Amino acid sequence: MEHKKVLSILVDNTTGVLSRVSGLFSRRGYNIDSITAGETMDPRYTRMTIVVNGDDQVLEQIHKQLNKLVDVVDIKELEENHSVCRELVLVKIRCSAAERQAVIAIADIFRANIVDVSKDSLIVEMTGAQSKIDAFIRLLDGHEILELARTGITGLSRGSDDVRFL
Amino acid sequence: MEHKKVLSILVDNTTGVLSRVSGLFSRRGYNIDSITAGETMDPRYTRMTIVVNGDDQVLEQIHKQLNKLVDVVDIKELEENHSVCRELVLVKIRCSAAERQAVIAIADIFRANIVDVSKDSLIVEMTGAQSKIDAFIRLLDGHEILELARTGITGLSRGSDDVRFL
Repeated sequence: MEHKKVLSILVDNTTGVLSRVSGLFSRRGYNIDSITAGETMDPRYTRMTIVVNGDDQVLEQIHKQLNKLVDVVDIKELEENHSVCRELVLVKIRCSAAERQAVIAIADIFRANIVDVSKDSLIVEMTGAQSKIDAFIRLLDGHEILELARTGITGLSRGSDDVRFL
Repeated sequence: MEHKKVLSILVDNTTGVLSRVSGLFSRRGYNIDSITAGETMDPRYTRMTIVVNGDDQVLEQIHKQLNKLVDVVDIKELEENHSVCRELVLVKIRCSAAERQAVIAIADIFRANIVDVSKDSLIVEMTGAQSKIDAFIRLLDGHEILELARTGITGLSRGSDDVRFL
């Protein structure tokens, strides 16, 4: 059965680790839906969060192969009910002075922030679960979206069990 | 001269594009500081935002080689004064009921949100410029950080000039 998996992978902060990890997926023909990677509290480690759609069996194989990479310190699957997953999106909207109020009203509903205004455009920043971000973008229908940048999902497991690394 | 560059790269949404792009950096011995990649409005394209520290000359070469990849549609350098760059961080803090108020007070100052509470931990979500996030994490000093997940930077150029793709 195909479904979406969110993997939180702690890796050594070394040159090429990103391409080694992402290569494992692409060699099996798996397209990564989104990826984020950033520093942890310990500069030796980077945390990657990868979202991938796929068949359970093949994802299990990828999981095993990831475990064999010397750079990989820890892998956790973030399950929906036991984790907090969030995404950040920046949306640039074409927007005259007359239309500005309408866009700001939509942003307010979603507690999104206006982070840039120019004569004929606005940039809105929003953070939330993926479904909330999708709903926000759908509501902007009717306004022209000039550019959009999403970080992809990052996440942590809920509670304090099972914490082994920063 | 070495300095930090933020590259916003629009790529075809194809299998392996991530490992091809990140491979270009690692083959030259460049460690990517952070990477985010997410869908755009057009499902054919993914926008990657890569932060890399490096020598101007070599980064210029990487820029040229990226341009030669068939998957790469557009590359823009996001310069500090002409762009909005944001990052999302989730921080899990060990926190008894007695300490909770102190952590919530720090979160409030930074307009961060509490997104999970358990008996002995809290998860705080914060969005902002990288310097703001660093300041927030420094202020948490004295509390034990159990886990931390950062998305890495995403960004858009300010204003509506030079917009060619979603």
